Amino acid sequence: MAGSDTRERILQTSLALFNAQGLAAVSTHRLAAELEISPGNLHYHFKTKRLIVERLFRRFEDRLSLLNDSASSVQAIDDLWLALHLRFEAIDAYRFVYRDMAYLCGEYPTLAQRAQALTARNLLAAQALCESLVATGVIQATAEDARMLALQIVFTTTCWLSFERLVPGRDALKEADAGMAAFYTLTLVSPYVSSESRAYLHYLRGKYLG
Amino acid sequence: MAGSDTRERILQTSLALFNAQGLAAVSTHRLAAELEISPGNLHYHFKTKRLIVERLFRRFEDRLSLLNDSASSVQAIDDLWLALHLRFEAIDAYRFVYRDMAYLCGEYPTLAQRAQALTARNLLAAQALCESLVATGVIQATAEDARMLALQIVFTTTCWLSFERLVPGRDALKEADAGMAAFYTLTLVSPYVSSESRAYLHYLRGKYLG
Repeated sequence: MAGSDTRERILQTSLALFNAQGLAAVSTHRLAAELEISPGNLHYHFKTKRLIVERLFRRFEDRLSLLNDSASSVQAIDDLWLALHLRFEAIDAYRFVYRDMAYLCGEYPTLAQRAQALTARNLLAAQALCESLVATGVIQATAEDARMLALQIVFTTTCWLSFERLVPGRDALKEADAGMAAFYTLTLVSPYVSSESRAYLHYLRGKYLG
Repeated sequence: MAGSDTRERILQTSLALFNAQGLAAVSTHRLAAELEISPGNLHYHFKTKRLIVERLFRRFEDRLSLLNDSASSVQAIDDLWLALHLRFEAIDAYRFVYRDMAYLCGEYPTLAQRAQALTARNLLAAQALCESLVATGVIQATAEDARMLALQIVFTTTCWLSFERLVPGRDALKEADAGMAAFYTLTLVSPYVSSESRAYLHYLRGKYLG
């Protein structure tokens, strides 16, 4: 197998194991065993677990950056729904990042700084999104309300999937329901939604609250 | 020193170290060194780290239970402010619990179940609180809005302090600002607040947003 294939397989398997078992629980030894390669071969590609985590974190940043870039083009409730859905899917695909953030920050201080910088970019994007919704008349909110709403959206998209595992009946390590998470986030926006834009909210309410 | 004193000192020091350094980072060996007692003496009082964590978790549950018991007596915005402030203080005093929840659940499955049961009780209390605010006319909300608001309050009180450490300029391991957190949570309620109850919200806005 070519080197770049092995490298990619290491990253994919690491992501799957970190997501399924927790960042703290997966050692490079465990990774090599799962990959059925020697620890020496793993070490040849990534000298430390930190380098693997950093590479995956970079991919997570890149995926959120793409979503942040399109924030100001959100001009209707169903655009917002789609944007939230895609964001929750991205966060769920790399769910170890926010779920295991306390451990990640403790082990890798440089990533703690990058996580803060990412949050700052997410906040700017959410503000652009809320301003766009106000400008197009989808929501009615003062500048201060719009800033608070942006903060609520970033808080919710960042932490909702971690919270969900504390709700009885949920399994912490399984795939999340991005649709339900997006619906929950939309309820934050609902008090500000203009009457013309309520139809889509009602449709979603029927779908998710039955 | 009497046995019960040593036991209490172990619990206090464990809580301080778990809060300051993270649950994953503190071993019983490290604890014994910090307490300046022998590992054997520590083992005499608590056979495993799990038993220490369980005892602290029980205290956290007891403290939140007290707060939950008084939820339905919240009948004004300033009552709500105080209730939120006290809750954030409790969560901050045991900040390792929610901050390190992913690790805690992975290591101690029985505590994962208890954390879910605690969330369920917090949700019931928040629903009683929101119903009380509707009944007294402090907020105007449909039954469905009130349920969603209760969910938002529990989500926010559970996760806000964890989110805060992702905001640039915050230190993850230090004491939180319970007042700021309570103000943020109140903004969730603000779209539903009756005009007569807005005065207190305006006072807080002036205080926290300057």
